Amino acid sequence: MEPRQPIAIDKAIELVMQHGKEQGRELVSLQECDDRYIAEDIYANHPIPPFPKSPYDGFAFRSEDTASANRDNPVRFTVVEHVPAGATASRPIGKGEAVRIMTGAAIPEGADCVAMFEVCHTYNEGDLEWVELKRPIRSMENVMDKGSETEEGALVIRKGTYMNPGVKAVLATFGFTKVPVTKKPKIGLITTGTELLDVEEDMVYGKIRNSNGPMIAAQCKRAGADFIHFGKLMDELEPSYERIQQALKDVDILITTGGVSVGDFDLMPAIYEKLEAKVLFNKVAMRPGSVTTVAVYENKMLFGLSGNPSACYVGFELFARPIIRQALGTPAVYPKKIEAYLGEDFEKPNPFTRFVRGKMRMKNGFVYVEPVGMDKSAVVTSLSKADVFIVLRGGTRGYKKGDMVEALWVDTQEGQRNTWNHHLSSEEGG
Amino acid sequence: MEPRQPIAIDKAIELVMQHGKEQGRELVSLQECDDRYIAEDIYANHPIPPFPKSPYDGFAFRSEDTASANRDNPVRFTVVEHVPAGATASRPIGKGEAVRIMTGAAIPEGADCVAMFEVCHTYNEGDLEWVELKRPIRSMENVMDKGSETEEGALVIRKGTYMNPGVKAVLATFGFTKVPVTKKPKIGLITTGTELLDVEEDMVYGKIRNSNGPMIAAQCKRAGADFIHFGKLMDELEPSYERIQQALKDVDILITTGGVSVGDFDLMPAIYEKLEAKVLFNKVAMRPGSVTTVAVYENKMLFGLSGNPSACYVGFELFARPIIRQALGTPAVYPKKIEAYLGEDFEKPNPFTRFVRGKMRMKNGFVYVEPVGMDKSAVVTSLSKADVFIVLRGGTRGYKKGDMVEALWVDTQEGQRNTWNHHLSSEEGG
Repeated sequence: MEPRQPIAIDKAIELVMQHGKEQGRELVSLQECDDRYIAEDIYANHPIPPFPKSPYDGFAFRSEDTASANRDNPVRFTVVEHVPAGATASRPIGKGEAVRIMTGAAIPEGADCVAMFEVCHTYNEGDLEWVELKRPIRSMENVMDKGSETEEGALVIRKGTYMNPGVKAVLATFGFTKVPVTKKPKIGLITTGTELLDVEEDMVYGKIRNSNGPMIAAQCKRAGADFIHFGKLMDELEPSYERIQQALKDVDILITTGGVSVGDFDLMPAIYEKLEAKVLFNKVAMRPGSVTTVAVYENKMLFGLSGNPSACYVGFELFARPIIRQALGTPAVYPKKIEAYLGEDFEKPNPFTRFVRGKMRMKNGFVYVEPVGMDKSAVVTSLSKADVFIVLRGGTRGYKKGDMVEALWVDTQEGQRNTWNHHLSSEEGG
Repeated sequence: MEPRQPIAIDKAIELVMQHGKEQGRELVSLQECDDRYIAEDIYANHPIPPFPKSPYDGFAFRSEDTASANRDNPVRFTVVEHVPAGATASRPIGKGEAVRIMTGAAIPEGADCVAMFEVCHTYNEGDLEWVELKRPIRSMENVMDKGSETEEGALVIRKGTYMNPGVKAVLATFGFTKVPVTKKPKIGLITTGTELLDVEEDMVYGKIRNSNGPMIAAQCKRAGADFIHFGKLMDELEPSYERIQQALKDVDILITTGGVSVGDFDLMPAIYEKLEAKVLFNKVAMRPGSVTTVAVYENKMLFGLSGNPSACYVGFELFARPIIRQALGTPAVYPKKIEAYLGEDFEKPNPFTRFVRGKMRMKNGFVYVEPVGMDKSAVVTSLSKADVFIVLRGGTRGYKKGDMVEALWVDTQEGQRNTWNHHLSSEEGG
């Protein structure tokens, strides 16, 4: 075995991202686009409001007719029409006339103000309906003018935006029955390890069930990718090699778990060699996940993640998720970094940079992160409670409760434009 | 029109929650349970690890055999077997014997410690493979003992937990091919308002497209509910009444948007009356959404949300989402409240409690919230940028940048056990 040279995490990320590319776009119905990223800038194709409208139930007039109104000398108007929201007055309003108008209705032509019911006195007299006003109403008072919320042509949703209820409302407003979204990259997963049982298998002494497969599937889904599970690799090189070569034809990215170490039965290094894949790195100066390997084969990426659950999880979030987010066209491709107060002591020194599974908590305007239970890389149960990975820099002698630390927030659709190792800057966001 | 009596927000929430009930459970495949809530406490059905195992590649021995080893007097062992992960030694280990063992493999019977490759010297001599050790290894050194991560019978996932990649890994570990999750409540939506065009319709002067329908659909989905859109109500009472009565047969909860005010064409109050539904309240002391109405008809809930987008959004999050989350069996039913520093001045006095759409941001260990653009309730575009609603309490004279405020974090699966109006306490979480 020739010893592997660990490279810095940032260098590894940089090497990976050189091979990222955006997926194409597709149109998806407004009903079905909930977990997607918008593929292009969306501009207002009409002003909002599209016409001057009333924000209240009331009466519309010509403001000049109200000028002399006061407590002692009210001005009265003939109510010539009732206009519900969605309807329009049948003719322009004239001098001394009023139109009863509901919230959201278009201001009748000729009118330029609205008085709310509360300031109006209405009565019937001589077959006519009248409204009386005891104060003047200014021009444009209680009128939401055309374009006052959004002008036609304004940028309303940026490319790369993740769908949310408000984004859907905006798309509906502008008539998008079909929404341009980026295609989901297709990820293949192959697990390795003769110690692995399928989830449905009964326990056998010496073996454990494959938890990495379902975990990575959920991580792919959260990252916005589609997912094919190709099952487990054989023990022998030749059929394993053929399985991987075949799988690569059907996917954009292939993730394997396990087999990347230097143990007697770790097949992946030999498979990369046989494929003549370009190995970008096979050792990273970090814990867990130091054996994470990334290779490129005919423009497709192979992520060789560690078989240890925590290392596998971190390797995916640090290296695979940014590639997926880049494919999805969001500019904020990297894990969202937060700065937070450490909620408890963490006294172990860190020769390598460590990623410790943790839980974020906000209280009284502060952000805290706390490790969640056992942090050995083989421990799976505490991963269920983690929403962040606390970053403990290499070369540090341990941390105390209350120290400010960095953490990568993984349980979110947010990201940032810079890698985790940069300082937070105005470039962040998304 | 008889004037409506506004009730306090907390009182309104309390009245609503008296009618909440948990849905039943169903089994869903592990592959398809990503957006679901676990319906029962999950206990470890075997210990983790299920057998004592090696965390490293190395050699397993009897520790007592290594006691005399030191730099000058190494102890040597015969390597009797190679055990990959997933396999087991063919026989118990004897005195002076070693087993070459891979990461994750079961410790052979009789052995009680492992030495990593790095501290071992191996060589062949006389047809035999030998390993030499220059220091003693303690009993249980480099052994992950059976049950040391999780004991059999331990609670590993709580009822009401939302699925995430780690939860899936735990379920896979314990062999859950089918996962017990709560059933999704079925929500019906009917929009009202003659001013509304369907999303696919061309613009007509005086009308606007229905954005509340797609928005509420996305809010239902985010809240974990299934969703049926019944379309728009007619103008007239009788067919509208029949439509609503019919819809109520197919759903658990019916949400209507619009028509709850006291305008000339607001049908909902008359429909509640004709249904003989019990109106819990029809005015709440808040902005936006003061006309939010909730009624109960034959054990089904009717949420009459305002037709104004922002009021509709807030009304859903404050009143409907907790009912949905209760149906889903999570104890943290109420919107997640955070305390944060206000990022900019908000100088308008607040006679009523206001919910201002905002964006949360973390920086240097602090949490900030900032209003996002125009906050008039009819304004739809800024909703797309909001992930929180900033709570500005009634009776306050405006807020300054840097003031501590509360906000409801809506763009998350987290919640809390107390309503928004309680102080944060140890009860929170989930």
